[in-house]
Amino acid sequence: MDYKSSGVDIDAGNEVVRRIRGLARGTHTPGVVSDLGSFGGLFHLGARGYRDPILVSSADGVGTKLRVAFLTGVHDTIGVDLVNHCVNDILVQGAEPLFFFDYLATGRLDPDVAVQIVGGLARGCRENGCALLGGETAEMPGFYADGEYDVAGFIVGAVERERLIDGRAIAPGDVLVALPSSGLHTNGYSLARSIAFDRLHLKVSDRVDELGMSIGDALLTPHRSYLPIVRPLLESRAGVIKGMAHITGGGITDNLPRVLPKGTEAVVRSGSWDVPPVFRWLERAGGVPREDMLRTFNMGVGLILVVRPVDAAPVLASLGGEGRVIGAITSGPSEPRVRYED
Amino acid sequence: MDYKSSGVDIDAGNEVVRRIRGLARGTHTPGVVSDLGSFGGLFHLGARGYRDPILVSSADGVGTKLRVAFLTGVHDTIGVDLVNHCVNDILVQGAEPLFFFDYLATGRLDPDVAVQIVGGLARGCRENGCALLGGETAEMPGFYADGEYDVAGFIVGAVERERLIDGRAIAPGDVLVALPSSGLHTNGYSLARSIAFDRLHLKVSDRVDELGMSIGDALLTPHRSYLPIVRPLLESRAGVIKGMAHITGGGITDNLPRVLPKGTEAVVRSGSWDVPPVFRWLERAGGVPREDMLRTFNMGVGLILVVRPVDAAPVLASLGGEGRVIGAITSGPSEPRVRYED
Repeated sequence: MDYKSSGVDIDAGNEVVRRIRGLARGTHTPGVVSDLGSFGGLFHLGARGYRDPILVSSADGVGTKLRVAFLTGVHDTIGVDLVNHCVNDILVQGAEPLFFFDYLATGRLDPDVAVQIVGGLARGCRENGCALLGGETAEMPGFYADGEYDVAGFIVGAVERERLIDGRAIAPGDVLVALPSSGLHTNGYSLARSIAFDRLHLKVSDRVDELGMSIGDALLTPHRSYLPIVRPLLESRAGVIKGMAHITGGGITDNLPRVLPKGTEAVVRSGSWDVPPVFRWLERAGGVPREDMLRTFNMGVGLILVVRPVDAAPVLASLGGEGRVIGAITSGPSEPRVRYED
Repeated sequence: MDYKSSGVDIDAGNEVVRRIRGLARGTHTPGVVSDLGSFGGLFHLGARGYRDPILVSSADGVGTKLRVAFLTGVHDTIGVDLVNHCVNDILVQGAEPLFFFDYLATGRLDPDVAVQIVGGLARGCRENGCALLGGETAEMPGFYADGEYDVAGFIVGAVERERLIDGRAIAPGDVLVALPSSGLHTNGYSLARSIAFDRLHLKVSDRVDELGMSIGDALLTPHRSYLPIVRPLLESRAGVIKGMAHITGGGITDNLPRVLPKGTEAVVRSGSWDVPPVFRWLERAGGVPREDMLRTFNMGVGLILVVRPVDAAPVLASLGGEGRVIGAITSGPSEPRVRYED
């Protein structure tokens, strides 16, 4: 017996490593001092000129959005989803991304699919100025069905300690500025797939008129990165953003309270932003109660900034017409929560 | 329809988060400034007093060793494996671990199993002085079989730039000092399971006399961390270690060349260390060619240090009797490789 006959092909793995090495190199930024092949990825923090940095890190996956990639055979956008999700998770604390690692696990490695996935990761990294510094590609026979895989991402960013955004200064009267999502991002896919594929028996290629595209394309729309639109505020108006929430699993309902201090409550006005067609369609087609919609999907709001009322106008101006005031902070019970008002 | 009926239970996830929060807190070290619940985990590098740090990071999984955890129902050592694997991957470049993130993916979340897994991660982190700073727990219905899961780890460590170990100074004449592994560590499990369970039809509880324990216990022995034994060398004899290789997937054959400069070759004397019983048993029971054994398993060598001949004696003394000289560096063809001599 040898290793290959037991299901693991070291040579195929090495081939993938060779092919993705070039993709990763294309993402390198000032600070990268290593190449793939080292045991660890090396990043020289001093190359970025930080004085007193806080490292801000996050780990994430893309959940069952992967299933849509499997059904459509489109494997080069999942990586963009993953990177952008991670970038947003550290952006909300004021951090810019430095580097990224992936973990890609399959049953049997298809080199072409692996290269498409990593191609998406590399594109996401390039678009965010983040180095794809390394990763692990695991071939685990029997763990994943043929043609299936899981992928996780890990990001490290940094912010000057004095510029850390932690929500501590949020107070009653502050306003909530929402930025639109590009779609479901990476959350709510178990429910969305259940509605589209189990209940309505749609195929991914079926066009849904209300969405103006196929259900596959609608569900595969990549998670948006808010770094480009928020960065100018971080750079030129430091301190203006008191807190930010990335609206991921749990929706506005569960994510906004994560940045609120005790004794505050967020009042969100339900009609104050446009809920995109895909959410209205899912709500109706699934007969999903509005409360569950708001705790499952982002409902068209991908990021919420909390600012003083006096700062709302310049912040909205900086956001170039994309921002919407969707509510405000009031005093509340000890545990922060969101209250929806019509 | 609501989210729970589609297979995702947010409340169960939140319960797990509550239970593991205490485990993670127990690992916190100077530098940790965040708590779980933030979007990103925060680490204040200045708290560690680095002057010009290189961040050294790695991502890894435990491969199909997980299958042994599933078969035995022992879920609290996999986390130790994962942390120690990652710690070793950055130790070989001279880095001490700062913090760790995990990604835990399941089909349906069993809170007790999740807590056991994270308990192992927390123990591994504590034992290495590494903070478990955050992680992602993903419930992905239909992706993983009942009772199964995958877990990946991401580590960030740091080393002063002037103390980075990168193998560049390795030259002919240098000697190879091996440190013993504790077992298979986390590599070669597809082959080992194939031999033990498919070929020999053993149950995990079956005792193998030659191993002095059950096959399940033998295969589940945790991956060893080399930080405690190597740290004194890093601290008191900086520069003595020219290069280190963590012997993971690919064995000595594929891992040692990763740290060798072009034009060098490692000559490893086959009889110069004791190959532990578990490898001899696998070799014989599986009829595995020695060459494949050496490219699949660590064969009893978990870490290799490359040092000048004059430094070998003090290094061996520092390693307290655990080190063995197993070979030397010679000049070789352009691409570094390992040559085994009897």
